[in-house]
Amino acid sequence: MGLVDIDDIAAAAARIDGYVLRTPLLDCERLSTELGCRVLVKAENLQHTGSFKPRGACNALLSWREQGRLPDRVVSFSAGNHAAAVAFAGSQLGVTATVAMPEAAQSSKVDNVRRYGGEIVPTTDLMGTCEELARRYGCPTLYPFDLPEVIAGQGTVGREICADAEPDLVLAPVGGGGLIGGIATAVKAAAPRCRVVGVEPELFNAMRLALDAGEVVPLPRGEPTIADGLAAPFAGEHTLAQVQRYVDDVVGVTERDIAAAWPAMVGATKLLLEPSAVVGLAALRAGVVDVPSGGTVVLVASGGNAVAPPG
Amino acid sequence: MGLVDIDDIAAAAARIDGYVLRTPLLDCERLSTELGCRVLVKAENLQHTGSFKPRGACNALLSWREQGRLPDRVVSFSAGNHAAAVAFAGSQLGVTATVAMPEAAQSSKVDNVRRYGGEIVPTTDLMGTCEELARRYGCPTLYPFDLPEVIAGQGTVGREICADAEPDLVLAPVGGGGLIGGIATAVKAAAPRCRVVGVEPELFNAMRLALDAGEVVPLPRGEPTIADGLAAPFAGEHTLAQVQRYVDDVVGVTERDIAAAWPAMVGATKLLLEPSAVVGLAALRAGVVDVPSGGTVVLVASGGNAVAPPG
Repeated sequence: MGLVDIDDIAAAAARIDGYVLRTPLLDCERLSTELGCRVLVKAENLQHTGSFKPRGACNALLSWREQGRLPDRVVSFSAGNHAAAVAFAGSQLGVTATVAMPEAAQSSKVDNVRRYGGEIVPTTDLMGTCEELARRYGCPTLYPFDLPEVIAGQGTVGREICADAEPDLVLAPVGGGGLIGGIATAVKAAAPRCRVVGVEPELFNAMRLALDAGEVVPLPRGEPTIADGLAAPFAGEHTLAQVQRYVDDVVGVTERDIAAAWPAMVGATKLLLEPSAVVGLAALRAGVVDVPSGGTVVLVASGGNAVAPPG
Repeated sequence: MGLVDIDDIAAAAARIDGYVLRTPLLDCERLSTELGCRVLVKAENLQHTGSFKPRGACNALLSWREQGRLPDRVVSFSAGNHAAAVAFAGSQLGVTATVAMPEAAQSSKVDNVRRYGGEIVPTTDLMGTCEELARRYGCPTLYPFDLPEVIAGQGTVGREICADAEPDLVLAPVGGGGLIGGIATAVKAAAPRCRVVGVEPELFNAMRLALDAGEVVPLPRGEPTIADGLAAPFAGEHTLAQVQRYVDDVVGVTERDIAAAWPAMVGATKLLLEPSAVVGLAALRAGVVDVPSGGTVVLVASGGNAVAPPG
């Protein structure tokens, strides 16, 4: 399979309809006033499980079912949001979900996986544990980002954005690159002149390193980021190709910028968001992405699985 | 002027279109699972200024402008959300807003009034100070609830709910009664068999007392409520009549029930809400309102102007 294209995303949208919510694109008057442009927030924190992740997970399982190869069990690895999404999608389709998660995962994310009946295996070696689980159970891995079905599912976010608005700039968080890759593919098909920029924590700049190297580069183990949902230790082969083809730029933001943007964006949008969801605002405020003055900016608020920021 | 009717609300909806947002009615899968019915949340925290209040304030000023009597200044009194709404509406129409607010008002609410250019007069005597301001400036008072234009404006919340869903039960917070009065009028016109129930803090049960007495009864000064937006010291003449005619019941919830429902509803909905916005959930959880098993319940989340609840 080559790159995910707009037809794959349209097929994903049809497939997951009824399993996931069509989330609202919300006008934020306070951020619009602050930034001097129209700011719209794609509120994926309001998606089932509290993040965009069920789009990709449901598209993968439903695709497999269409192909007559729906397993009884899937395994995966995740900081938490993909884990909850796999558990959610599995609960819809009668598939047991077993997920390797960091021992230091946020307790709200652990609770969220259990809420949907997912089995958690705490580990310090996400990939190794996931591979071991796949061998033990003889079942497929529903990878968190580097799977065409997942990229196509996440791309439905971009498809919905372009159905609701005519953006000049779309900013989306980057962990492993499934969300930004899918969104960019959908947005460039509908609005070729719209800029699509990915934002990752400087501490976890796996996509930037992969773009610069022209290949996937594993990150050295470093400091944790407050944006725990974006702490992917590497980009994916599929996601890198997708980003190379469709994304205008990938920029980094500091921990300080993310921490400052977090309560600001929660207060301005009145949405409960996790730090990963505010990196776009952090990038605009830090000046690492230019504001299209008088234009329309979409911030993809990827999830809300955190306790609230300090007020 | 007699009771506000559905035509008044339709006129208000046309009048305020473009000044206020049409807020989403959000499916909440977690609360639906918990309560055994379909739970929809009318997210008025996402309205401009962070609460439903601009609907009524804009309808009042726009009505006055239609009648050729738009003043240069208005005064009012408010715990904060109506104050911000008057400032917001005034800023749209070139009207200065001066509002009496409690000396102990939430700082987030004070900031929110200033954000829209409103003038604040801190006081321990809201009504007396407001009357003095009206005399000093020789200008009209844009009352927070007991004004037909305000009731009609708040009623657009109910009109939107019935355009988006077919509820069996609508629960709305009650302070002075403008919101519940307007909503009930709209809902009973569109869905006569839907129950409409108001929920107020037991500590500020001014509407319950007024219903029992058949007339407005001032509350003795008592303990403050965590739901500061509902701390109206009396119901209104207009709102009482509206509630008597259209509302099925008005119930009370304890401070403990509100405090427990607050983080639960924020976590389940992923919306930043203030305590006043969660009294409907508190009533369902406490059993003071019956859940229509398998039916559709709308919780009106009236505002989000608070720091986040303890996680």
